[in-house]
Amino acid sequence: MLPSRLTRLIDLFARFPGVGQKTSQRFVLWLVAERGELAQELGAALSALHEQVRPCERCGNVAEVDEQGTALCSVCLDSRRDKSVLCIVARVQDLLAVERSGAMRGRYFVLGRLLSPLDGIGPDELPLPELMARIAEDGVREVILATPPSVDGEATALLLARELAGKNLSLTRIASGVPHGGDIEFADQITLGRAIDGRRPV
Amino acid sequence: MLPSRLTRLIDLFARFPGVGQKTSQRFVLWLVAERGELAQELGAALSALHEQVRPCERCGNVAEVDEQGTALCSVCLDSRRDKSVLCIVARVQDLLAVERSGAMRGRYFVLGRLLSPLDGIGPDELPLPELMARIAEDGVREVILATPPSVDGEATALLLARELAGKNLSLTRIASGVPHGGDIEFADQITLGRAIDGRRPV
Repeated sequence: MLPSRLTRLIDLFARFPGVGQKTSQRFVLWLVAERGELAQELGAALSALHEQVRPCERCGNVAEVDEQGTALCSVCLDSRRDKSVLCIVARVQDLLAVERSGAMRGRYFVLGRLLSPLDGIGPDELPLPELMARIAEDGVREVILATPPSVDGEATALLLARELAGKNLSLTRIASGVPHGGDIEFADQITLGRAIDGRRPV
Repeated sequence: MLPSRLTRLIDLFARFPGVGQKTSQRFVLWLVAERGELAQELGAALSALHEQVRPCERCGNVAEVDEQGTALCSVCLDSRRDKSVLCIVARVQDLLAVERSGAMRGRYFVLGRLLSPLDGIGPDELPLPELMARIAEDGVREVILATPPSVDGEATALLLARELAGKNLSLTRIASGVPHGGDIEFADQITLGRAIDGRRPV
């Protein structure tokens, strides 16, 4: 019923995270009705994307490509950042959140994925060789494991802790507990258990 | 924190229906991590979209642009369709749903919007002159009002019925009632009221 060019476009948008065929069809029909300006602007921006922005070659954060074709992100280029401290995160979104907190003055390593046996992601699918090379190269002395406190995130942190043991590193895991402004009454059992296990002297 | 090219792309995706800044950021970071092939393919398809697909000049359905630069949809081009029967729908998605039912052998008119005083959409924002021209041109004798049975859809159907009164047309509204396979026990009051009001002899 729809022109083949639209069904192809719908298939492309349906590959986006969290987007199915229905949402994708809604996007595409909306773009057609918008009279083309937005589609053209978006088309030009997307066509140039890979030439201009790529994952940072050192840490996996998003980075603008420079004139030599090298992609290094603003954190890796900032010489004031302490390169002996490395914060390991799962995704670029998590890196941005840690940056917003302002509590990390070191550098990052983006894993890109977490251990997830159900999705077929085992230790071999994680960029462990790249991580080891990075730690040796930068003379890292402290590693902060900032994967999320979920099942997959905890499993990944455990694997990383095991891989990094005996390398003479200060190895820490971000705290898990009742969030700022949160209610103790309504905290779930696991969170409250962690908050008590992780209690600190005042 | 993000390169300006990415924030621009995030702003563009955030204009999509149902997409906010967070979802848009997720799309764009995912596209960067995908190594560029999808972004490039999507970019090319979107850049060409307006040249290839536009709203049908007669009914507002999506249509491929032909060599003369005319955009007429497959329904309007199909001479077997009864052009004396016109089905008025709000959106292209609704037209596709009516087509799937196979119950309509006439043609369509897509309004593109519904009356919605809260969003500032009054009668002047509806394509009424185009609708009147279409009815006169095609010698329409039957009009089926297939706007949704929502507050805005009913208001629009009422307005259209008033505008089309006295034009010697058979004017009908699609039935509203308990859907096929639906439970009478769990039908809401308004639906059940409509089902009883709209009862038919058996």
